[in-house]
Amino acid sequence: MKASDYLIKKLETLGIEEVFGLPGDFNFKIIESVLNNKNINWVGSTNELNAGYAADGYARIKGYSAIITTFGVGELSAINAIAGSMAENNAVLKIVGVPKTKHIKNNTLLHHNIVDTNNKPNYKAFYDAYKNVVQKAFFLYEKNIKNSIDNAIDTLIKYKKPVYIALPVDVCDMEIKENEKDFVLNIPKSDKKAVEKAADMIIETIKKSKNPMILADILTKRFDGKAALNSLLQRTNMISCALLRGAGIIEYNTKNYLGIYGGTLDNKKAYNMLNTSDCIIEAGCVISDLNTMNFSYKSKGDIIIQPHFTIVKGKKFDNIELKDILEALAQKINYIEKKEIINDFCYKKTDIKASDKLSCDYIYSKLQDFLNDNDIFVTEVGLIPFGQMPMKLPNSITIENQMLWGSIGWATGAAEGCAFASKNEKRRTILVTGDGSHQLTAQEISTMMRYGLKPIIFVINNSGYSVERILCDDVDYEYNNIAHWDYSLLPKVFKGDCYVANAKTNADFDKALKEIEKENEDKMCYIELFTDYLDIPYLAKGIVK
Amino acid sequence: MKASDYLIKKLETLGIEEVFGLPGDFNFKIIESVLNNKNINWVGSTNELNAGYAADGYARIKGYSAIITTFGVGELSAINAIAGSMAENNAVLKIVGVPKTKHIKNNTLLHHNIVDTNNKPNYKAFYDAYKNVVQKAFFLYEKNIKNSIDNAIDTLIKYKKPVYIALPVDVCDMEIKENEKDFVLNIPKSDKKAVEKAADMIIETIKKSKNPMILADILTKRFDGKAALNSLLQRTNMISCALLRGAGIIEYNTKNYLGIYGGTLDNKKAYNMLNTSDCIIEAGCVISDLNTMNFSYKSKGDIIIQPHFTIVKGKKFDNIELKDILEALAQKINYIEKKEIINDFCYKKTDIKASDKLSCDYIYSKLQDFLNDNDIFVTEVGLIPFGQMPMKLPNSITIENQMLWGSIGWATGAAEGCAFASKNEKRRTILVTGDGSHQLTAQEISTMMRYGLKPIIFVINNSGYSVERILCDDVDYEYNNIAHWDYSLLPKVFKGDCYVANAKTNADFDKALKEIEKENEDKMCYIELFTDYLDIPYLAKGIVK
Repeated sequence: MKASDYLIKKLETLGIEEVFGLPGDFNFKIIESVLNNKNINWVGSTNELNAGYAADGYARIKGYSAIITTFGVGELSAINAIAGSMAENNAVLKIVGVPKTKHIKNNTLLHHNIVDTNNKPNYKAFYDAYKNVVQKAFFLYEKNIKNSIDNAIDTLIKYKKPVYIALPVDVCDMEIKENEKDFVLNIPKSDKKAVEKAADMIIETIKKSKNPMILADILTKRFDGKAALNSLLQRTNMISCALLRGAGIIEYNTKNYLGIYGGTLDNKKAYNMLNTSDCIIEAGCVISDLNTMNFSYKSKGDIIIQPHFTIVKGKKFDNIELKDILEALAQKINYIEKKEIINDFCYKKTDIKASDKLSCDYIYSKLQDFLNDNDIFVTEVGLIPFGQMPMKLPNSITIENQMLWGSIGWATGAAEGCAFASKNEKRRTILVTGDGSHQLTAQEISTMMRYGLKPIIFVINNSGYSVERILCDDVDYEYNNIAHWDYSLLPKVFKGDCYVANAKTNADFDKALKEIEKENEDKMCYIELFTDYLDIPYLAKGIVK
Repeated sequence: MKASDYLIKKLETLGIEEVFGLPGDFNFKIIESVLNNKNINWVGSTNELNAGYAADGYARIKGYSAIITTFGVGELSAINAIAGSMAENNAVLKIVGVPKTKHIKNNTLLHHNIVDTNNKPNYKAFYDAYKNVVQKAFFLYEKNIKNSIDNAIDTLIKYKKPVYIALPVDVCDMEIKENEKDFVLNIPKSDKKAVEKAADMIIETIKKSKNPMILADILTKRFDGKAALNSLLQRTNMISCALLRGAGIIEYNTKNYLGIYGGTLDNKKAYNMLNTSDCIIEAGCVISDLNTMNFSYKSKGDIIIQPHFTIVKGKKFDNIELKDILEALAQKINYIEKKEIINDFCYKKTDIKASDKLSCDYIYSKLQDFLNDNDIFVTEVGLIPFGQMPMKLPNSITIENQMLWGSIGWATGAAEGCAFASKNEKRRTILVTGDGSHQLTAQEISTMMRYGLKPIIFVINNSGYSVERILCDDVDYEYNNIAHWDYSLLPKVFKGDCYVANAKTNADFDKALKEIEKENEDKMCYIELFTDYLDIPYLAKGIVK
C-alpha cells in the first residue's frame, strides 16, 4: 500500500468523511490519495486558516478531523487554527506535503522556503515552528513511515489535541506493509483497579461532605464523558453547574442543575453554591481567566477528574480515563441529594417592545426559543458567549465556543466544519458572529455554499470590535472601527442559494426567525442584525472597564 | 519616555508613516502609542495575514514597515506573511502585545494561550515558533527594554529581514531614558579598503575575460544598489540581464540589457550569453528554482556581490555593502563593451483580434503599453509573472512579485502596502491577481477603500488554480476547482467608490483600459477578466507537465 493511501485509510477508521485544505504542488499526491478513497471527500476551502477552523469545528462534532496544506506558505497560514485546536482540545491531524527527500538532503533552494543571510533554505523551520503548538510532530522519511503514521493517529486519539505530520513528495509513493490490525482504533484503556479505588474514594468523600456538587467543563465533552455525567446526575440529583466552555454538557432540565457559572455577573445560586461547597467534583475542568469569570472560582482541588487521571483529596490515580471514572460513579453511587434548588437563570419574558431598535438582549432571548434539540450552536469569540450564557437550552444541543483560544473569525470556519460533520443527521448548525470577527474569514461562506451546506448564520453588525470598545480606555478609539460592509450582499457575490434578510428592529428579527423556519428546509440562511455600537448583552455590562 | 512610545518613535526614524495590524486586549497600549505619534497612522486591516502582506508590500517600497498584532491568535495568523518577508528580504518589524510580566512569571492561564495535557499554558510557544522564521526575535522584560528595541531596529536595517518583538502590557508603560542619538539610523558601513581591493580585483577580472556580463537580481534592489548598478551599466554598456525576481531593476532601454532570463522558455539571447560568458558578475542574486527557471542557470561563482560581502574568483571580501561595491565599480571602471546586442524580448504587435475571447497573451501585451514610468506593478504568484516576463517595461517602474515564497493571496495585501507607501507620490499601484489567489485575501480590498487608496486591480477569473492544473497529472482534478464568485460585486459589498468593469473579449479589455485612465484619477478600479480555464501565458506553456 502506498504511504499516502495508508495515511488516508487510517483517517477512515477515525470516522473522518471530509478532509479540508488547499492544494499546492508539494501535496498533490496526498490529495490524490483522498480522491482515490471512496469514503472520504475532499473539501477545498478559500484559504488555509479557514480550512483549519473548519477542521477544528469538524473535530468538535465528529471527534477527529484532518487538514492538508502545502509546505511553508500553506501550513503557516493554518497554524493559528491548529494552535486553537491545541488550546481547545480538538483532535485535528495537520498533514503537510513537503518537497522530495533528495531536495531536503541537498538543501536545495525551492519555492515556499525561507532563506538565511547566506540564501540557504531551512527545511525544518516550519516543522520546528509547529512543534510548539501541537501535541506531537512527525517528519516522515523512508525508514519511519509506518511507525510515524501509527504513532500520529494514536496520539490524536489519546490526547484529542492536534498532531502534525509532514510527508515528502517521494515518501507518498513508498510502499508499506499493512495488516488488518492497523485499521483498528487504539483506544486508551483505564487501569480497572484504579478506577474502582478512585470511585470508592470519591463516593466516600461525597458521603462525608455536607454539600457536594459537580462542576462540569469542556474536557468532559471532548473525552466522551457527557452521557456518563448526565446519568450520574440523573441518578443522584447532585447539585451541578458548568463553566462557560462546558455549556450544553449537562441537560438543562436536569434536577439541581444551576446553569453556567457566571462569577459575580449573574447566576448567584451557582456562585454561592460553588463558593460554599465542601466537596466539588471538577469534571474535565480547565481553570482559565474567561472560563472562571476572571478566576472568581478557585479550585480547592477536592476531586479533580481529568482526561487520563483522577485526584481525590490530593491522592492522584493515574491511567484513569475520564469516561470510565464517571461511568463507575454513575453505577456505584447510592447518594441522593435531598436539597432542591430551582434554576431560574435564563432569559425571561420581558417588556422589550417588538417595534424597538434591535438589541442584544432581544436577540439572545429570542434565540433561546429558536434553538431546538440537536442543534449545533456556534458562538463567536467576544461578547456573544455572554449572550448565550443565560440561555435555557434544549436537550441534546451542542454548544461550541472558543473561550480559551479566542481567535476572532474562528466561528465562521468552525460552523462550516460542524455543518459538514452533521450533514447526514437532522441537525441545524446555527452560527452567531459579529461584524468585526466575520470580516476575517467571511469568504468561507462560499465554501459552505459550494458544498450545499445549510447553516443559519446571524451576523451582528455593530460597527466594530465592541468587546474591545468596552475593555479599552475609550470606546471611540479608532482602532476598534472597521470597514463598513453591506453584509447582505455577500451571498450574492458567492452565488449560492440563500435566504438573506436583515433586521433593524426587534420585529424585523421576529419576522426573520419565522422565515428561517421555512427557508432553511432547503437553503442556507444569512441574516444581518443591526445593533448599536455600544449595545452589549446585559451580562457583559459587568466587564465594562 | 514610555517604552512603547520609544519603539514607535524609532519607527519614525525608519520613514514609516503607517503601521498595520489589528487590535486585541494585549496590544491596546502599543496601538495607543501609534495614535499618540502624530507622524504615524494606524491602519486596521481585515485580518492579520492581510496586515502582514500589506506590511510586506509597504517595506518593499518604503524600505521598512511594522505590524502590530495581539498575543497568540493574532501573531500566528500573520506568521505566513512574516516568513514571506524573511524569504523575500523585506524589513518588517513584527510587534506583538503579550500579557503582563506577572502573568508570564506565574504561568497564569489567560486567553489566547495554548495548554499542554496538564492544562498548563506556554508563554514562550509563539516566540519559539517565530524564532524559526525571522532574523531575530526579542521578548521584552524590565531589564532589556532599550537594548532590545535598539538591537531590533539595527537588525532590521542591516539584514532587511523581519524581526519579532514581544512587549508585555506592563512593559509598555515602563520609562526608559532616551537621547538624541537613539533616533539616528545605524546604517552598516563598508570597510573602505576592502571595497577598493575588491573593486580593483573585479575590474582586473573583467578586463581579462572575453565576454563579461552582469546578472542582476532582487537583493540589488533591496539593498539600495539599483541606482549604482544602472550607472555602472550606462558607463560601460556591459551586457546584462536580470533574474525574474530582479525584474525592473535594470532600465529596459539600457544598452545591451537583454531583459529577464527565461531559461529555455524564451529569450534565447540571454540564455546563450549567460551560458557562454566567462565572467558573470552576480549582483544580489538568489539562486532558487523558479528564479532560475528550474536551475537552468548555474552559478560558476566568478564574481558574487551579496548584501554584506563580495567574492571574486573564490576570494571573499567581508564587510562590503552591496551598494558601495557597485558605486566603486561605477566610478573606477574604464571598461567599455564593444559588442552590441539588440534586446527584442518583448510583446510585439500581433494579429490577435480585438473581437476574440479575452486571452492571457492579449492581456499582458496590452498591459505592456498600459504601464507608465513610476508605476508599481504587483504580480500575484503563479502564472502571472510568466506573463510579465517578456514585457518591455517603462523606466523607473517597480515590479514586485513573490517568486521565492510564493504564497497565493499575497499580492492583494501587498498591493495595499505598496499603495500606502506611495500615497504621497504620483505613482499608480497596479495589481494583477487570479481568482484562486484572490479568494484567500479578497476582503482586504475593503481596507484599501476605507483608507481612500486607488490601486488598479485586475482579477483574472479562469475558474480555479490554473498554475496547478498544468503542474499536476490531470487538469481536471477537482482540487483545482474553486467556488464561483461574482467578483464584480465585491466592491459594492465594501461600499467603496470604485470603477468596476469586466471583460470577456479583447475589445472589452481595451475599453476598460481606456476607462481606467479617466476613472483612476479619483477612484480605485476593479476589473474582472474572464479567460478560459486552460488559457495561460505563452511562456508558461514550456512548464506544462
